[in-house]
Amino acid sequence: MVTPGEDSGPLANPFDADPAFPLHRGGKIEVRPTVRVRDRGGLSLAYTPGVARVCSAIAEDPALAYDFTWKANTVLVVTDGTAVLGLGDIGPEAALPVMEGKALLFKEFGGVDAVPICLDTKDTEEIIDTVVRLAPAYGGVNLEDISAPRCFEIEQRLDALLDIPVFHDDQHGTAVVVLAALLNAAKVTGRTLGDLRAVVSGAGAAGVAVTDILLEAGIGDIAVADSKGIIGPDRSDLTEVKAALAARTNRADLTGSLEDALAGADVFIGVSAGTVGDAAVATMAPQSLIFALANPDPEIHPEVAHRTAAVVATGRSDFPNQINNVLAFPGIFRGALDVRARTITPGMKLAAAQAIADVVGDELAPDFVVPSVFDRRVSAEVPRAVAAAAIADGVARLT
Amino acid sequence: MVTPGEDSGPLANPFDADPAFPLHRGGKIEVRPTVRVRDRGGLSLAYTPGVARVCSAIAEDPALAYDFTWKANTVLVVTDGTAVLGLGDIGPEAALPVMEGKALLFKEFGGVDAVPICLDTKDTEEIIDTVVRLAPAYGGVNLEDISAPRCFEIEQRLDALLDIPVFHDDQHGTAVVVLAALLNAAKVTGRTLGDLRAVVSGAGAAGVAVTDILLEAGIGDIAVADSKGIIGPDRSDLTEVKAALAARTNRADLTGSLEDALAGADVFIGVSAGTVGDAAVATMAPQSLIFALANPDPEIHPEVAHRTAAVVATGRSDFPNQINNVLAFPGIFRGALDVRARTITPGMKLAAAQAIADVVGDELAPDFVVPSVFDRRVSAEVPRAVAAAAIADGVARLT
Repeated sequence: MVTPGEDSGPLANPFDADPAFPLHRGGKIEVRPTVRVRDRGGLSLAYTPGVARVCSAIAEDPALAYDFTWKANTVLVVTDGTAVLGLGDIGPEAALPVMEGKALLFKEFGGVDAVPICLDTKDTEEIIDTVVRLAPAYGGVNLEDISAPRCFEIEQRLDALLDIPVFHDDQHGTAVVVLAALLNAAKVTGRTLGDLRAVVSGAGAAGVAVTDILLEAGIGDIAVADSKGIIGPDRSDLTEVKAALAARTNRADLTGSLEDALAGADVFIGVSAGTVGDAAVATMAPQSLIFALANPDPEIHPEVAHRTAAVVATGRSDFPNQINNVLAFPGIFRGALDVRARTITPGMKLAAAQAIADVVGDELAPDFVVPSVFDRRVSAEVPRAVAAAAIADGVARLT
Repeated sequence: MVTPGEDSGPLANPFDADPAFPLHRGGKIEVRPTVRVRDRGGLSLAYTPGVARVCSAIAEDPALAYDFTWKANTVLVVTDGTAVLGLGDIGPEAALPVMEGKALLFKEFGGVDAVPICLDTKDTEEIIDTVVRLAPAYGGVNLEDISAPRCFEIEQRLDALLDIPVFHDDQHGTAVVVLAALLNAAKVTGRTLGDLRAVVSGAGAAGVAVTDILLEAGIGDIAVADSKGIIGPDRSDLTEVKAALAARTNRADLTGSLEDALAGADVFIGVSAGTVGDAAVATMAPQSLIFALANPDPEIHPEVAHRTAAVVATGRSDFPNQINNVLAFPGIFRGALDVRARTITPGMKLAAAQAIADVVGDELAPDFVVPSVFDRRVSAEVPRAVAAAAIADGVARLT
C-alpha cells in the first residue's frame, strides 16, 4: 500500500518530482480473491469440479448469478475517453487513471466492486452494443466522461436495453450534489426552492441534468445559457437536446447573453468553462446563491461571488462548500445494488440529494451546506434513502 | 474471507447442503484499492486535480499507461459461455463462476489482476470487435470456454489485431501441461519424443493445440481421431481446421476408428468425452503412456490403463499425475506481462512446458511426472522461462 505523501525514496524517474506520479505507479486498484484456495480440497470447490455445480444451477436459473457470483456487488465504469475532466478527448488509455480513481472511490465509499472499461471507439452504436454484451456479469453501469450530446442517447438507450442500473455520473452525480447543496443553501437563507429563479451556465452533460433535477425538485424558473447565450425559442442553432431544454425552461422568455439572464437572478450554477464578469454578478438579486463549479477555475471567483452572495460553492477542495460527486455516486449504486434495482429513477436521485443535505443537520451554515466526503454518515444514509426510494418506485427486486 | 470447509452456521438455503454453494455466495473476487485515500490531500492526488496530470502524460505518450495504470498487470478473461467445462453452452451468467475462479487462480498463482468478461453474444465478429474495444485498459486476453471451431479464428484474429498477448487457455494451457507431462513420461521410461507414435482423441480446442505443440516438440507421428474416426485425407466431412490437421498429421495414413489407430501406439492422449474399450487399450505398444483427460470420466479408467501403461495421467485431482492448466496459464501470463510481450509465441509455450517438467527434477517417477499446482517453484520458474523465451523470440518490449 502506498500512502499519498509518503517518502518514496530517491527519484527514480523525472515524473517522480510530482507526487501524483509515484502514487499512480502500477495503478490504483487490483483484483483479489475473497475465498482462500490453499489445498486440493479448496481448489476442487472453487474450481473444477465443484464450480460446475454452481454453473449448472445458474444455467437453470440465471437470477442465481446475483447470489453465487460477484454480479450483485459490481459496476462497470465505462468511458470512451472523449470528455475526461477538463482535458477533453484524450483517448481511452489516458482516461484510465480517472476510471481507476472512480473504482477506488466506489470501493472506499460504497463497498462496490467497480471495473474500468476504456473503450477504443467513440461510435454511439458501438458503445451501446459493447456495454450490452458486457452486462451479464455486472450489476450496474456507471458511464463516465463521455461527451455530449452522445452521452444522453447512450445513457437513455442502455437504460432501456438493460435490467441493471445505468447512471451517467457527469450528469446525475453532479446534479444530485448540486441539489443537495441548494436545498441547504435555500434553508440557511430562509427560502424554499419554489422562491428561486436560477441561471445555469452550460448545457452539456452536467448542465442538462442539473436543470432537470432542479425542475423535478420544484425550483421556480430556470434559464440555461450555453456559449452562444440564453437557450430559448429564438435560437435557431439548437441541437435536439437543447431544443428540448428550451421547451421546459426559460418561462420568462429571456433572450441575450448569460449576463443578461443574471440580472435579478437568485441562483447561479456554473457547469461550463466560461467566466462571468464582475459587473454581471453585481446585478444578481440580494442574498444570491452562487455555485461556480468549473475546475480548476470557477466561472466566478469566490472572492467576487461573496460581494453579493449569501452562499458560495465551488468544485474545489480548497474552498468551503465543495460540490463533489463522491458524495453521490458510491452511495447511489450501493443503495441500488442492495435492493437489486432495475434502474435509477428520478425519485432515487432526489432521495440521494435529500439524504446528503440532511447529513449536514445542525451544522448548517452559509459556509457548510454540504458534508465532507469523509463524513461516514454519507455512506450510511445515501444508500438507505436510495434503496427506500427504489422500493417505493417499484424498481427493486429485493424489498 | 471464507475458507472452504469452514462451518458456515445453520443452513440458510437449500443450496447450502453442497459446500460449493456457500463458498460461492457473493462471488469469489473483489476489486480493491492499492492506494489509500484518507484525506483531502490523498483524494487530490489519486483523483482530481492530481490525476489530471497523469492523464495528460499518458495522452502525450499512451505507452505510459504501462507505468501509471494497472494495465501492465491485467488480463481480461473472456468467454461467451458456449463450452464451459463439460457442461457445454450454458450462457454468460452461468459461465461467470468459472471466470471468477480463473481470476482467483490468476492472482493466487501468478499475481495477475484478471477481470471476468462473460459476453452476451456468440457471434465471432461481435466477440472480436468487443475484445478489441476493451483492450486499451488491459495487458492481455485469456480466452476461455469458447467452442470450436470459432475459438481458433477468434484467437488468431485477436492476436493479429492486438499488441497484447492473446491466449486461449482451453487450447494452449492444456497443450503446455500435456507436453510437460509427456516430456517427463518419456524421460522416466528412457525414451525421447522422437521415438513416440501418438494418438490424440478429440479434435476440438484442446486436441488441435495438443497436436500442434507435440509436433512442435518433435514427436514422431500423431494420429488424431474425432467422434467419426481417424482424421485423414480419406475423410470428406472435415471442417477447415480438421482438414488442415489432416495435412500435418497421420504420416502413416491410418484409416478407421480411434481403436484402429491405437494398435501399436506408444501414447494415448484423450481430450474428448468418449470412452475407449479395454481390448483396444491392450493393443497399444508396451510401456505405453496413457493421458486420459476427460472430466469427470477419463476415456480410459486408470485401473484399465495401468494394465499396459508405464505412465498414466488424468484430469482429476484424486489420481496421480493430474494434468491441470493451473500449472501453466498464471505463469505464462506472469512471464509475458513481466516483459510486456506483444504476443505469446510457440517458443514461449515450449519454454513453459519445459519449466513445468523441470520442477519435478529428482522426484521424477511414473506416478509423479507433473508437479503439484501448490508447488511454489512452478510460480517462479514458469514466468522466468516464458519471459526469457519472449526476449529470445523478439516479442518483448522490456528486456
